[in-house]
Amino acid sequence: MKTQNLIGNQYTDGSKTFRAINPSTGKELEGDFQVAGKEDVDKALALAEKAFAVYRNIDKDTKATFLLDIAAGVNAIGDQLIERAMAESGLPMGRLQGERGRTTGQLTMFANLVKEGSWVEAVIDNAQPDRQPAPRPDIRKLLVPMGPAVVFGASNFPLAFSVAGGDTASALAAGCPVIVKAHPAHPGTSALVAEAIKEAAQKNNLPEGVFSMLFDDGYAIGEALVKHPKTKIVTFTGSFRGGTALVKLAQQRQVPIPVFAEMGSINPTIILPEAIENRYQQIAEHYAASITLGAGQFCTNPGLLITVDSQSTGKFKEALGTAIAKIAPATMLTAGIHHNFEKLSAEVLSEQGVEVLGKSASENGTKSNQAVPLVAEVSVVDFLKNPKLSEEVFGPFSLLVVAASVVELEQVIAALQGQLTASVVADGEDLINYKDPINSLVTIAGRVILNNVPTGVEVVPSMQHGGPYPATSDGRFTSVGTGAIKRFVRPVAFQNWAPDLLPPELKDANPLGIWRSVDGVFTK
Amino acid sequence: MKTQNLIGNQYTDGSKTFRAINPSTGKELEGDFQVAGKEDVDKALALAEKAFAVYRNIDKDTKATFLLDIAAGVNAIGDQLIERAMAESGLPMGRLQGERGRTTGQLTMFANLVKEGSWVEAVIDNAQPDRQPAPRPDIRKLLVPMGPAVVFGASNFPLAFSVAGGDTASALAAGCPVIVKAHPAHPGTSALVAEAIKEAAQKNNLPEGVFSMLFDDGYAIGEALVKHPKTKIVTFTGSFRGGTALVKLAQQRQVPIPVFAEMGSINPTIILPEAIENRYQQIAEHYAASITLGAGQFCTNPGLLITVDSQSTGKFKEALGTAIAKIAPATMLTAGIHHNFEKLSAEVLSEQGVEVLGKSASENGTKSNQAVPLVAEVSVVDFLKNPKLSEEVFGPFSLLVVAASVVELEQVIAALQGQLTASVVADGEDLINYKDPINSLVTIAGRVILNNVPTGVEVVPSMQHGGPYPATSDGRFTSVGTGAIKRFVRPVAFQNWAPDLLPPELKDANPLGIWRSVDGVFTK
Repeated sequence: MKTQNLIGNQYTDGSKTFRAINPSTGKELEGDFQVAGKEDVDKALALAEKAFAVYRNIDKDTKATFLLDIAAGVNAIGDQLIERAMAESGLPMGRLQGERGRTTGQLTMFANLVKEGSWVEAVIDNAQPDRQPAPRPDIRKLLVPMGPAVVFGASNFPLAFSVAGGDTASALAAGCPVIVKAHPAHPGTSALVAEAIKEAAQKNNLPEGVFSMLFDDGYAIGEALVKHPKTKIVTFTGSFRGGTALVKLAQQRQVPIPVFAEMGSINPTIILPEAIENRYQQIAEHYAASITLGAGQFCTNPGLLITVDSQSTGKFKEALGTAIAKIAPATMLTAGIHHNFEKLSAEVLSEQGVEVLGKSASENGTKSNQAVPLVAEVSVVDFLKNPKLSEEVFGPFSLLVVAASVVELEQVIAALQGQLTASVVADGEDLINYKDPINSLVTIAGRVILNNVPTGVEVVPSMQHGGPYPATSDGRFTSVGTGAIKRFVRPVAFQNWAPDLLPPELKDANPLGIWRSVDGVFTK
Repeated sequence: MKTQNLIGNQYTDGSKTFRAINPSTGKELEGDFQVAGKEDVDKALALAEKAFAVYRNIDKDTKATFLLDIAAGVNAIGDQLIERAMAESGLPMGRLQGERGRTTGQLTMFANLVKEGSWVEAVIDNAQPDRQPAPRPDIRKLLVPMGPAVVFGASNFPLAFSVAGGDTASALAAGCPVIVKAHPAHPGTSALVAEAIKEAAQKNNLPEGVFSMLFDDGYAIGEALVKHPKTKIVTFTGSFRGGTALVKLAQQRQVPIPVFAEMGSINPTIILPEAIENRYQQIAEHYAASITLGAGQFCTNPGLLITVDSQSTGKFKEALGTAIAKIAPATMLTAGIHHNFEKLSAEVLSEQGVEVLGKSASENGTKSNQAVPLVAEVSVVDFLKNPKLSEEVFGPFSLLVVAASVVELEQVIAALQGQLTASVVADGEDLINYKDPINSLVTIAGRVILNNVPTGVEVVPSMQHGGPYPATSDGRFTSVGTGAIKRFVRPVAFQNWAPDLLPPELKDANPLGIWRSVDGVFTK
């Protein structure tokens, strides 16, 4: 495991070092990781800009092979990767093995997308030389990469949203060099994966600088990366505070750039009366598991449950409280995250009208940074007059609000901010009786879900992981699924362009065999 | 011609009035236009939000008919519209008749796009109940409208980028209600068109508030519209100063919103030696005409010509100077625009090394606000050390830079900011000898053009009218062509959603017969 910054193909020292901490023990892990300096930012971006001039035009098969080689390299690290990630994140082995599968799956998905090639959205409108009053020129359009992307590693996905995660995979697939700012909570995991990317780049003779990775245990390097004039796109998954700080920096640049920040959400779930009547026990257990999955550290954690009062409401509440009581505390990712969870959940409990509905009954044991699962309850009146209750408590926490009527339900929905997801648990007539509030969820969320929990974000073309502000900085884009590639591109039109100079995607003969719109007709 | 603000179906007075001015005469035109107040902004947006709840789900045929009825209504105004627009803009009849054709053509294009229906980019990934370790749910995605859009009328397109222009047409096509802030230079033209939209909305029984239009002769109403919490998208075509001011306002909101500002460009054109040798006379005349078209008041006006020194450079310069001298001055849109043109072109001429190459030799005559066509020249050295020379001079002005070599040509290109367009004039070996600089244009512009002038933006699906900052606030989007609809939408995924609740675009049977990606396969 290298502990240096990776700038192109070179490993370089910094002026100081830091160590990772095992959140389960609170103890330092081996490895003195080198904190990068501003000059490293300059070097990495100078290389990235040069690499971009070549990489933006590289043939799609080489790009696909590069991505597949990264996936193979990540797998080849073997148990060492899982063990280091477990030590650095406190996440269990099964979860990290699954996350590794997701990571290599994402790389493979983007390799296939690039190989197939139609993602560039090629459009051709042939010339009309006889048009009156003036001839119409030949115009052709496709998506092109925008330039070097800065990817911030996420604490809650040490593999799938970090060094070779979805952001890196989609940026490289688009044709953008990547500079990763490694998350300081898992530098060893980051180093292992970065080396696999470096080797895959060299194996495919890609220009040096197509990938770099810098360490920092503070904010200076991240800031410098976002402010650097050669940076063209930024991706981030984390807190609202962190995300909005990056957005602000990017807006203040002489040339502003997009920051795709996934900043969290309370993922409201509406649980309707007929469903509760039919299966309150199953719903309570299903949601208790979703609220506490991965110590509640998922962006799509259901932080707000809303139900409409009915004869079985009491039974549901009791079942939910009992289900939460049965779930053991779990290690959170970092001491800081654990501290915030304890602070924010205590603050919510101290707000007017908030009562504990259920809490884990397990002993805390000897491990550090244990999050104790908790569900609280508040009335609609108290909820509506207190915006603080609509803010995310990152961790195994959820708030239950019982509406007296469909009108109150609509009032609660209308008070919500933008969300990654909004879910409905409904049976039979529920879908008819609550049709309007159910349909209105489309206006506040990026994904609406029926009778499924929001945790578990499928990596498929139809996925939308990104909702209206403040769930993400830009709800028009997704960070999961094939659509994630669109964050790194913009359209360019070629007018009357010489056939020899046209990119292959736009040549008459369609040498790549991709889907294109030609004179208004979809064809391949 | 109504002179009041149109709020939904109601015309309302303001507390003060203003008049339009004929720029050719400097005299006031008839009509006391009512300046809207903040309460009108609130009323228009309250109606728009209510209308959105209905209009976002309206069937596509009604939406298409609405757009076609607007086009018919605009045509039905007849000569009155052209005459008023001529008086308010100083633009000649032929140009405005053409612009009316473009306006109704855009409305028809979006009607056809909506009727066809595939623009929503429907993606369906069917469930995989047997997947291990967990079943995969059914997920389906499409684009949905984001909410009320504020459209700023543009001074330089009183029809095609004003009240029923491309922004309004694409917003309404997407399913977003529109509130137009009428441009104060052409309030009468705006009023005539607004009435046609109101009538089309009523004829189709659309919810009141799907369209409103407010007048202001200052900035207060525009600001209030951008800051209003119910506004979800803003479009603007105008100056860098105006565009960036709106962007800043939108970023400072509690919930930031996108502003699509088309802010201008110097549209560099590279004229290469073999082309000059073959046809310097024709190139000079062609470009002189492009530089002065519409008094140079097009966003795509070629404001910077770059050539590489060769034996015919002198002949080209002489021909260009002569061609410009032959073109008569023309009326600019407003006294303010004319004043800025005179001021900025004089400032450029006073910069170090800048010399006049050619100037209109015509008499100014008796008309007001006449722009005198002008081409100046500067050396590469002086150009590179003076960023002011890369700024737009809105009007019939262009600057010629003669590079001594391909290296100097590349230096000039590298110094350029983001552009709407970049053009190349080349013959034979030029395309081989200058391949690298030609290809590099893709990284700075939204549209690259070979042997065509940049003025004349075709309204086709392949058009990209939007380039990297500062040409537009967001070069990932276009304001011309079918792609313009994407400015008003975001994706929403439906997971395990009830078939009855799915929008028709996502139902299994594909009742609308649109193109969709189903389990990774494009199908209809």
